[in-house]
Amino acid sequence: MNTAAADAYLRKARDRHLEELTAFLRIASVSALPAHKDAVAQAAAWLAERLRTAGTPEVRVLPTAGHPIVYGRWHVRDGLPTILIYGHYDVQPVDPVALWESPPFEPTVRDGALFARGATDDKGSLYTPIAALDAVRETAGAPPLNLKFLFEGEEEIGSPSLGPFIREHRALLEADLAVSADGSMLDAATPSLTIGNRGLSAVQIDARGARTDLHSGVYGGAVPNPIHALAALLAGMHDAQGRVTVEGFYDEVRPLSDADRREIARVPFDDASYRAQLGVTSLTGEPEYTPAERVTVRPTLEINGIWGGFQGEGIKTVLPAEAHAKITCRLVPDQDPDRIAGAIEAHVRRHGPAGVSFTVSRFPGKARAYLMPSNHPGLAAAARALKDVYGKDPVRVRIGGTLPVSDLLRDGLGMWLLFFAFGEPDNRMHAPNEFFRLASFERGTRAYVRLFDALSRLTPEALRAS
Amino acid sequence: MNTAAADAYLRKARDRHLEELTAFLRIASVSALPAHKDAVAQAAAWLAERLRTAGTPEVRVLPTAGHPIVYGRWHVRDGLPTILIYGHYDVQPVDPVALWESPPFEPTVRDGALFARGATDDKGSLYTPIAALDAVRETAGAPPLNLKFLFEGEEEIGSPSLGPFIREHRALLEADLAVSADGSMLDAATPSLTIGNRGLSAVQIDARGARTDLHSGVYGGAVPNPIHALAALLAGMHDAQGRVTVEGFYDEVRPLSDADRREIARVPFDDASYRAQLGVTSLTGEPEYTPAERVTVRPTLEINGIWGGFQGEGIKTVLPAEAHAKITCRLVPDQDPDRIAGAIEAHVRRHGPAGVSFTVSRFPGKARAYLMPSNHPGLAAAARALKDVYGKDPVRVRIGGTLPVSDLLRDGLGMWLLFFAFGEPDNRMHAPNEFFRLASFERGTRAYVRLFDALSRLTPEALRAS
Repeated sequence: MNTAAADAYLRKARDRHLEELTAFLRIASVSALPAHKDAVAQAAAWLAERLRTAGTPEVRVLPTAGHPIVYGRWHVRDGLPTILIYGHYDVQPVDPVALWESPPFEPTVRDGALFARGATDDKGSLYTPIAALDAVRETAGAPPLNLKFLFEGEEEIGSPSLGPFIREHRALLEADLAVSADGSMLDAATPSLTIGNRGLSAVQIDARGARTDLHSGVYGGAVPNPIHALAALLAGMHDAQGRVTVEGFYDEVRPLSDADRREIARVPFDDASYRAQLGVTSLTGEPEYTPAERVTVRPTLEINGIWGGFQGEGIKTVLPAEAHAKITCRLVPDQDPDRIAGAIEAHVRRHGPAGVSFTVSRFPGKARAYLMPSNHPGLAAAARALKDVYGKDPVRVRIGGTLPVSDLLRDGLGMWLLFFAFGEPDNRMHAPNEFFRLASFERGTRAYVRLFDALSRLTPEALRAS
Repeated sequence: MNTAAADAYLRKARDRHLEELTAFLRIASVSALPAHKDAVAQAAAWLAERLRTAGTPEVRVLPTAGHPIVYGRWHVRDGLPTILIYGHYDVQPVDPVALWESPPFEPTVRDGALFARGATDDKGSLYTPIAALDAVRETAGAPPLNLKFLFEGEEEIGSPSLGPFIREHRALLEADLAVSADGSMLDAATPSLTIGNRGLSAVQIDARGARTDLHSGVYGGAVPNPIHALAALLAGMHDAQGRVTVEGFYDEVRPLSDADRREIARVPFDDASYRAQLGVTSLTGEPEYTPAERVTVRPTLEINGIWGGFQGEGIKTVLPAEAHAKITCRLVPDQDPDRIAGAIEAHVRRHGPAGVSFTVSRFPGKARAYLMPSNHPGLAAAARALKDVYGKDPVRVRIGGTLPVSDLLRDGLGMWLLFFAFGEPDNRMHAPNEFFRLASFERGTRAYVRLFDALSRLTPEALRAS
């Protein structure tokens, strides 16, 4: 394949590609909010149309119990390896919206980056292989391998429909290797290959005291306050150092090998600049592990939200009837999401203060952790593509985030998933002022051209090997 | 005074009085919410007009830094005792509004009670002496003593302007005894005389971790989570039994005498029915004290509200940048509100987990506790009035709530405050579905007629004695 011609095409098409991505980002496809259902459907329709204009002969928007899945298939010829490109067109909520410097759904370029909700996670990232496909089609007529596309609209709520979808459409999705356009590079100067990710288990805890809100002056001191009880319960889920104290939480965790720790230590990590970048004075977490280990290969229990009682201006002397918290756990290989949710339930039963009743609800979004074999030939192919674009060998990393699809594809379809995405961890994914560096987008499109080429030289059998 | 004639007048005027009170309750005078500023002003104007129609010769709406004060004066003649009637025309916020069976500002009579925000606290209660004044005026031509009225619009936010107002208008407010139309009876069948109330100290704690919200998968496990830190900090403010563990919190608390404890034990308190009424399985608090003592004469620290991170539907895997809590403490005699706020600040400085910064802000609403001398002749006069209406002697109680005015009047004007109000603790003050029993309103108006009469037989000097 003529990668120089493809690169030239990409340079020429850059403005049009950016305009298109901007149009995609304008669609407020927040999967978590029922009021945005239509916007999610609109994003799916936009994406399907874009796959068609990229030349994909077969494109379908397939319904699920939740948001639809956009499917595409470009079968070039039998015998070529088939790759299934995964991404998600839904985005995170945008609150607190007041902290955005430009509105989250009005994409804005400044300082060499595109700012918008979803700029990196994952609209910009999934648009990257599509732009690369334009270049391949225009310069070579057709891709050098068979392509399938699987773009879901529920990744940000834990992909509840993806498992059932995969089980019902096994033939449609059959491939030799999956490639994820969701994920990220270590930083803008350091190419990396993600070989694993953490799993997820999510619950909500609802605490209830008295039947109604009460006057704190009349009842305070004798009637249990669900905020006090919830605070005590939540405080008891970590020790002072930040270890999780939920009974059984670490039971299934594989010991970290010295080789694992050396691999992680290869990635530069400067405590002081990390803290300075985030604006915190100190870090927290298991003291037996480095911060880099804590955020990637160790499991966590994080309270994502809490609320109860009066939150307005001034004071309201209320003894509230209810208090609530949302918790997600990041899991590592061998931890079972349901067992972890059960451990939290047992902890709540055992330690919930008297006089307050607790309900624990499990959210459907859950996933096991994922870890790719280190000798998989796809990793070598990807490493060549990255070296060609970045000028240096990628480091291998395990990321702390969760991509339920890796577990679902491995378990459901028996294929490995190669992460190939070009955002960076500082892109403020899930936070205000999310952005995607234009240079990263450009490197990503060129790298995808090279990945298609490198994978096309492997046999389907090699890609399927474990 | 002909109390039978006054009673007859009150029976005849009942429907008109209820209509008027309903009109008053329709005004959404929520002092805590800036958006309700005009409604608060409208309630003040309504009340001033009502004092005029009651015959009060001098009525003024006086500005403060916050909401206005409604002042009235009916000087019958020199030599008579002068009483200053206190009440507040502002009301609590109404959230959660979904739990109201009828809208909070559409007063509705059902089951012999008037349901509305402020029905008891305090519009219905302050309207009671005004209705009594109608009866006295219509049957005796004028009240038997000199009257002044002091109705504020900031009680529910801690009366921040009342102190400055009292300091600036000492001559206007001069009287021999104050009578509070804010407060309550023990229950609908048990007349009571409130001789004391708890004070108040209020703070907000703001916790901040990283500069922005972060992806919990990318940063969870190493970056301090302000919700975790706040939960740990708040959990550490009570022990497992419910004693406050903030250092120095109990330092100034007077020991409870055996006589005090006997007086409190005279009031019937059934643990099981108390719990059943509130819908809680067990009570909490200092085990060395009875529940009745805990809610009246012991100090408390209550978290009134907490919030941080994601509170919407579903899950959002965010590691939030901020978390917040609102706290009010109920204080007993000799505790200083500023010293207690300082103790909380010191506790936060000492125990706030590392990596999260905490700010403690003091709210302007604060008050010392109040306790009236047990031999004050006003108490005997009030007891006679209550016995005449209820048919039995009142019990003396110290209430758990806070009426900043008692401290302000005692300290600022040197007069004692006699509580004379006819709501009951089960009226859901500060909660959804607040109500005022029509029978209690009726008893209240008749009792006020008798109180005016009984106090008019005392000398100004006797009422001023400590």
